[in-house]
Amino acid sequence: MEQLIEKIKNDGSVLSSSILKVDSFLNHQIDPDLMNEIGSEFARRFSGSGITKIVTIESSGIAPAVMAGLHLQVPVVFARKRKSLTLVNDLITASVYSFTKQESNEISVSSKFLSENDKVLIIDDFLANGQAALGLAEIVNKARASIAGFGIVIEKGFQDGGRLLREEGYRVESLAVIHSLKNGIVEFEITEEGKAELTR
Amino acid sequence: MEQLIEKIKNDGSVLSSSILKVDSFLNHQIDPDLMNEIGSEFARRFSGSGITKIVTIESSGIAPAVMAGLHLQVPVVFARKRKSLTLVNDLITASVYSFTKQESNEISVSSKFLSENDKVLIIDDFLANGQAALGLAEIVNKARASIAGFGIVIEKGFQDGGRLLREEGYRVESLAVIHSLKNGIVEFEITEEGKAELTR
Repeated sequence: MEQLIEKIKNDGSVLSSSILKVDSFLNHQIDPDLMNEIGSEFARRFSGSGITKIVTIESSGIAPAVMAGLHLQVPVVFARKRKSLTLVNDLITASVYSFTKQESNEISVSSKFLSENDKVLIIDDFLANGQAALGLAEIVNKARASIAGFGIVIEKGFQDGGRLLREEGYRVESLAVIHSLKNGIVEFEITEEGKAELTR
Repeated sequence: MEQLIEKIKNDGSVLSSSILKVDSFLNHQIDPDLMNEIGSEFARRFSGSGITKIVTIESSGIAPAVMAGLHLQVPVVFARKRKSLTLVNDLITASVYSFTKQESNEISVSSKFLSENDKVLIIDDFLANGQAALGLAEIVNKARASIAGFGIVIEKGFQDGGRLLREEGYRVESLAVIHSLKNGIVEFEITEEGKAELTR
């Protein structure tokens, strides 16, 4: 998605060979116009897939997910992260390991918002090692709903998440795929419309 | 806001004389169309106020704030909640006491996203005792930005937050004000256009 790639080039900052900071428009400060375009693009890519619900995870997934929900005209549910395992009725849960924090967190969705009749689009801001995405998939599967695919704003193509999801047979639509962050330079994989080249 | 009041009447559930559950459209599952209408209404009420930025708090404030940002054409910043006081550079912080959890949490915004030239609209899903709202105001004030007002989706009129904010001279625009939740019935204050009556 050209508009997103330009935004990353102009406003993203490379903190290390694995960390891209996009807190000026995606995960701390949010650019509502860009979120609207992102939501529209997810809706375009998944139109005709019979999506009935979007599932995302707090907090940074919410803005792109709500815009996609507006364009697809379906409700959005965001999974909550909880540190403690307090017993609450009717919650579907999954455990998500964070490599950064080296700890597991429980994520949960109320069972009343997912049913076996739902066809779910899972949206998140980043796809890196895929642990959060797999946790969301686990929750949707536990609810016996089906997964139409994953809508990812930024995929770190040099980490394992995208491969893991695609190997499990999931459709993954990433609006920007980063090939490398080496030497402080963002190198993108351009995969739209069958092309597979690199740009900086 | 009539559409919101109807939604609360139809889909909200009263858990006690102080707790209204709206997790089917506002703070767990989200209704994107309603959020869009809410954003449009905040934009209408604060049009001409010279708003340059919206500040909210994760997670439930994000959806209405981003829609308001889309309609007002300004960026949105969401404050993060953190349990620990790890030292991070360039963060503006405030301490927010939760009466429910009986603990204080630190909320923070990166200083680079607020400046003395900003005129800020603070948006949140609920206004109850006002602690989160006052914490957000503290952060905006610390950044020497000015506060144009508060946009609240649901105000619990029977708790102190609204009074506290208005006594400090802040403009508070609440789209639905709840007068009482007694006996399992939601009673609203109708305050739009100068009227002050009650409806159930």
